[in-house]
Amino acid sequence: MRATIMYGAGDVRVENVPDPSILQPTDAIIRVIRACICGTDLWLYRDMPGSETGVSMGHEAIGIVEAIGRDVRTLERGQVVVMPYASSDGTCEFCKEGLPTACVNLGIMSYQGLNGAQAEALRIPWADGTLYPLDVDTDDARMTSLLTLSDVMGTGHHAAVVARVAPGRRVVVVGDGAVGLCGVIAAKRLGAEQIIMVGRHPDRLALARELGATDIVSERGAEGVERVRELTRGYGAHSVLECVGTREATLLAIEVARPGGAVGRVGLPHYEAIPGAEQTFWKNVTVGGGVAPVRAYIDELLPDILEGRIEPGRVFDRAVGLDGVPDGYRAMNTRESIKVLVSP
Amino acid sequence: MRATIMYGAGDVRVENVPDPSILQPTDAIIRVIRACICGTDLWLYRDMPGSETGVSMGHEAIGIVEAIGRDVRTLERGQVVVMPYASSDGTCEFCKEGLPTACVNLGIMSYQGLNGAQAEALRIPWADGTLYPLDVDTDDARMTSLLTLSDVMGTGHHAAVVARVAPGRRVVVVGDGAVGLCGVIAAKRLGAEQIIMVGRHPDRLALARELGATDIVSERGAEGVERVRELTRGYGAHSVLECVGTREATLLAIEVARPGGAVGRVGLPHYEAIPGAEQTFWKNVTVGGGVAPVRAYIDELLPDILEGRIEPGRVFDRAVGLDGVPDGYRAMNTRESIKVLVSP
Repeated sequence: MRATIMYGAGDVRVENVPDPSILQPTDAIIRVIRACICGTDLWLYRDMPGSETGVSMGHEAIGIVEAIGRDVRTLERGQVVVMPYASSDGTCEFCKEGLPTACVNLGIMSYQGLNGAQAEALRIPWADGTLYPLDVDTDDARMTSLLTLSDVMGTGHHAAVVARVAPGRRVVVVGDGAVGLCGVIAAKRLGAEQIIMVGRHPDRLALARELGATDIVSERGAEGVERVRELTRGYGAHSVLECVGTREATLLAIEVARPGGAVGRVGLPHYEAIPGAEQTFWKNVTVGGGVAPVRAYIDELLPDILEGRIEPGRVFDRAVGLDGVPDGYRAMNTRESIKVLVSP
Repeated sequence: MRATIMYGAGDVRVENVPDPSILQPTDAIIRVIRACICGTDLWLYRDMPGSETGVSMGHEAIGIVEAIGRDVRTLERGQVVVMPYASSDGTCEFCKEGLPTACVNLGIMSYQGLNGAQAEALRIPWADGTLYPLDVDTDDARMTSLLTLSDVMGTGHHAAVVARVAPGRRVVVVGDGAVGLCGVIAAKRLGAEQIIMVGRHPDRLALARELGATDIVSERGAEGVERVRELTRGYGAHSVLECVGTREATLLAIEVARPGGAVGRVGLPHYEAIPGAEQTFWKNVTVGGGVAPVRAYIDELLPDILEGRIEPGRVFDRAVGLDGVPDGYRAMNTRESIKVLVSP
């Protein structure tokens, strides 16, 4: 079969690789019908040292179950499923507590020796705990929105939950990528009174407005902080969604938080320490978040997608086949595209 | 009147100073009947650069109202009151939200030009919002426990609340000072199943056990982390109370937190950035806390003191008059004493 392999910064190739096979009795094989490229993949695309073996890319998919191991109980061949980016056994105490990304059998798809989803098929460990069955046809019009349940919509929602978005709250979303845009959807869905998007890409900001952002701030650093303060009666926001992952974005998130407020971090941190130790202390600002337990959020988010109340699939602005994946990386990396849909 | 002035590291003097007087119509003057020395005061005692004018010390007191400004409505002369360490107007939106330490008229007693409480008397700004009336006599046996409502008991409770202590939770308290010991009381009061005290002073650890600690860890660094993990089935604690304020203590707090857990920081931070940005992210550990809104907690904690269910006054192990204050600083700084009571 064909799969996407990254061999180093900027070096993405679609190649023939061995077909996946059941290795454990709890595995399933899915045929990928929709996948996509993630902002997280771009970190590697920019910085990955050269590798002879490469990394199998992609951690978001909707697929059809093609084979199951002998211990798989909840799935059968032909079932349409969402594949969350992390595999989890569904039975450990963390899974039961709603934190499958702390599963004692956690795997992150495309890393840790697992194959990626920008491919025709892949093996899924702990299939019962990981895959979420969908009652839709493969040509369903809501397919792109359903695909976001595998990562970006659940991740934006996680940021909003950790940042304690609730009716009447003033919210800032830092970062206008796909996760930030899903953060806007999540904040609106949870009843935010004001949603301030901090970003600088006109096309993304226009989409943010359509998805529910009430204000846009494009100034950087201290000017951006000042602008958010002006928009929030001088006090800052109750809830801040950090959807970038840099030290600068995190510091901005903390600076625009209102005393007693909360920052939800979902941008993969590219910094060693969380800035603002004194500022968070004097303001009693809580900093939380992390790898989003998207599998646990599907129950809550799925009905809103099926019934058309949210359309996170709108973050996709380009569609390619597998052969178009390398150009998809290029387009996302140059910001020509927000998020690229892949139909193998 | 006589008051405690610090002129530099290790240089604490009790001197004659002008009597306080009403400056604003919302002020009150209290005569101090009990005050104390705080671990926070020791930071200055160790590091304060020399000063000709000095700093008026002390931010914890029980007093008797001696005079009130013309706009004070809820107090009268002779009323016994708790003085929280921070003054707050009681009417701004932060006060109403239960975060008086973010009051738009916030003052921290003994700082920001305010007089300190290790004195015969002091002026209290925003007396209606700040002082909390007590229905007790000045010789009440519970006086030392009531005094802790001005800071350490409310601060330990804040750490526990932010760290989400609840029935069944495993809790770690980092720091065996008065705040950490009050954190043990708070954790037990909130129903913790296991309370692990991390500290190294035998007298304090013995008291911690009496107050409710179920386990003691005295190892430092990686060994301490390993020991806590052993005590928590390998996963770490749901709730960690950081009651020291150093980078090392904060890193330890993060390292012993269970995935999905929470750290409540109440040690005044002597570090610029919160360590463990990646670890908190991968574990989804929330880091919160800060200057404790102790005024807002008195309603909840007072009945437990009055009815004898908690005795935070047990953290006092030495009592002095005003003249004994300099020696009290010395005794706390050398760890001869946990917390020193001052009866002017």
